[in-house]
Amino acid sequence: MPINIAVIGAGAWGIALALQAQRTGANVYLWSRKELPNPETKILSRLDCIPIPPSITVSNLFPKTADLILLAVPLQHLRSILSELPDHAPLIACCKGVELNTLKFPLEILEEFFPNRLHGALSGPNFAHEVAKGYPTASVIAAKNINLAQELAETLSSPSFRLYANNDPIGVEIGGAAKNVFAIAAGAAMGAGLGENARASLITRGIAELSRLSIGLGGNPATLSGLAGLGDLILTCTGQSSRNYSLGVELGQGKKLHDILQNRTTVAEGVTTAPAILQRAKNHHIDTPIIEMVSELLNEKITVKDAQHILMARPLNNE
Amino acid sequence: MPINIAVIGAGAWGIALALQAQRTGANVYLWSRKELPNPETKILSRLDCIPIPPSITVSNLFPKTADLILLAVPLQHLRSILSELPDHAPLIACCKGVELNTLKFPLEILEEFFPNRLHGALSGPNFAHEVAKGYPTASVIAAKNINLAQELAETLSSPSFRLYANNDPIGVEIGGAAKNVFAIAAGAAMGAGLGENARASLITRGIAELSRLSIGLGGNPATLSGLAGLGDLILTCTGQSSRNYSLGVELGQGKKLHDILQNRTTVAEGVTTAPAILQRAKNHHIDTPIIEMVSELLNEKITVKDAQHILMARPLNNE
Repeated sequence: MPINIAVIGAGAWGIALALQAQRTGANVYLWSRKELPNPETKILSRLDCIPIPPSITVSNLFPKTADLILLAVPLQHLRSILSELPDHAPLIACCKGVELNTLKFPLEILEEFFPNRLHGALSGPNFAHEVAKGYPTASVIAAKNINLAQELAETLSSPSFRLYANNDPIGVEIGGAAKNVFAIAAGAAMGAGLGENARASLITRGIAELSRLSIGLGGNPATLSGLAGLGDLILTCTGQSSRNYSLGVELGQGKKLHDILQNRTTVAEGVTTAPAILQRAKNHHIDTPIIEMVSELLNEKITVKDAQHILMARPLNNE
Repeated sequence: MPINIAVIGAGAWGIALALQAQRTGANVYLWSRKELPNPETKILSRLDCIPIPPSITVSNLFPKTADLILLAVPLQHLRSILSELPDHAPLIACCKGVELNTLKFPLEILEEFFPNRLHGALSGPNFAHEVAKGYPTASVIAAKNINLAQELAETLSSPSFRLYANNDPIGVEIGGAAKNVFAIAAGAAMGAGLGENARASLITRGIAELSRLSIGLGGNPATLSGLAGLGDLILTCTGQSSRNYSLGVELGQGKKLHDILQNRTTVAEGVTTAPAILQRAKNHHIDTPIIEMVSELLNEKITVKDAQHILMARPLNNE
C-alpha cells in the first residue's frame, strides 16, 4: 500500500521533493504557504514551468495526517511551522543552514521541539530544477540511528534519485550550511579576477576548513569528503545556477552588498549563514578563516583587496 | 646570488614554469624541442601570445649546467630526454600521467634512471595560462624526503605561486594522472545530459576512488583530499579550459573517439592515461569502476547508455 508523504513548503525545492516523492509510488500532499498562482494547472514559475500533476494534492492548509513529513520551508521559518504538523510521523529536514538566534542546525531544532520523535536530514548535491526533471541525483540521508537512515533511504529513493544512509547528522548539516558561504568566497575569487586555479585551491581549503569544523562540533570529518560535503560544495561553487556564487562574483567585482541585494528577488542564504556559522565556530574556538573572511566582506569590515590578501597569504607550511 | 633554473620543454606549461621561475629571481634557461616560431619576439601562440622576456634564454640545445631542472616535456617523451640532462642538479617532474609501456609515474621513471639523484614532483590545480599571467596559484611539491620538499617549495615559490611541501609522491602523482580520466567522465556525464547534480556526485566518487588507489599503491589517501588530488580534479572537471573535459562532452554526446580526435590538434592525455592507470590498478587488484568505465567508453566496449547505467547504478549502501 502506498505511504502518505507530506512535503511542507512549495518553493523550488519543495516542489522538486514532491515530484520525487511521487516517483517512489507514494501519495503526496504539498503544503504551500501561499495559494498557488495558478491553481488550475499548478504551474510554478520557479521551476521552469514544470507542472505539478493533479495527483499531488496542493493546499495552504496543513495536512492532518502523514506517514512521513519532508520539511522544505526556508530554515529561518522552520520553527514557526512545527506546531502545525501532524503527530507521530518521522520528520526529514530538507532545508539547510543555521538558525540565526539559536545558531542551531535544522535537526537540532527538531530535536529541541520534538525530543521523542524520529528525524533525519536530507542533503547533497541536488539542484532543485534537476531533481524536479528526474535527472540522476545522489544524496545523503542522515540520522543518528543508522537503521533509521537506511529505512528512510530505501523509502525515498527511486532509480533517478539515490539516497545513501549516514549516521553523522552534524557533519551532513555543516556541509549543507557552509557550502553557501564558500560559494560566496568562490564567486568573490572569480569576480575579483583571481582565476580558476585560485578557485580550485579555495574549494580544497574549504573542505579542510569544514572537516575541522565538523571535528570541533562533534561530527565526523570524513562526512565532509562525501556527497553532503564535497559533492554539494562542488555543485554550489561551480554550478551556473547558484545564487550564492553569483552574489560572490558581484562582491568580488567590488559592488556593495546593499546594492546587490536591491537588484535581486531571490535569497542568497550564505549572506545570513556566514555570520551565524562563524559565531558558532567561535563559540567552540574553531578557526574558520574563509568563513570569517566572507563574513567580514559581507559587512564591509574588509575590502575585496584585503580578502584577496587573506585568501592567498598562507605560510609555506606542509599541505 | 641567483640560481640557474633550466626548464625542459616549451609547451604552454614549460613556458608558464619558465616565467614563474623568473619571478623567483632565478636565471632561467628554457629548452624547446623545436626552434621557436618567432625567435625575434619569442611569442608563442599556445599562451595567448604572452611574450617571453629576452632575459630568459631559449634554445633547442640542452643546457650544459643548472642548479635545478624542471621537466615539462609530455610524460611519454620524458624518458627519451633524460640522458641529455646536465649532471647533479635536482630534477622536478612537472609532467603528469603514466608511462604507457612501464605503467610508471614520472618520479618512478626518474628514480629508475637516476637512482642516486634528488627529485621531486610538482602538481596541483595550475592551468598554465593562469600561471603564465601571474594569477594566484597554489600547488604541491612532493619528495620522499620532506626536508627536500620544503627546500624546493621555498626555492620555487613567489607571492603569486605558492608551493606546499608534501612527502607522498605516489599520492600526488596519482592525482595528477587520474584527473584527466575523471575529467573525461565528468564531461561525458554533462555531454549525455545527466546534469550538474550527477557531475558533482561523480567528482565526489572520484576522490573516493583515487584514495583507494593511493592506498593500494602505497600512498597516503589524505593526499588526494589536498591540492594535488581534489584541487586539480575540481579544476580539470569544471574549468572551461580542460581539453579532457571537452573530449568527454563529445563522447557523452555519442561521438566516436576516432572522429573527435580527427578534429583536434591538441592532446587529451586522459585518452592514453585511462587504460594505463586501469592496468596498473588491476595489477594491484584495486577496483576503479569510474576509470574502467572511461577506458571502455574510449575503446567502444560500452556505449554512453551503458556508461550512464554504470555511473548511476550503485546499491543503496551507506556512504
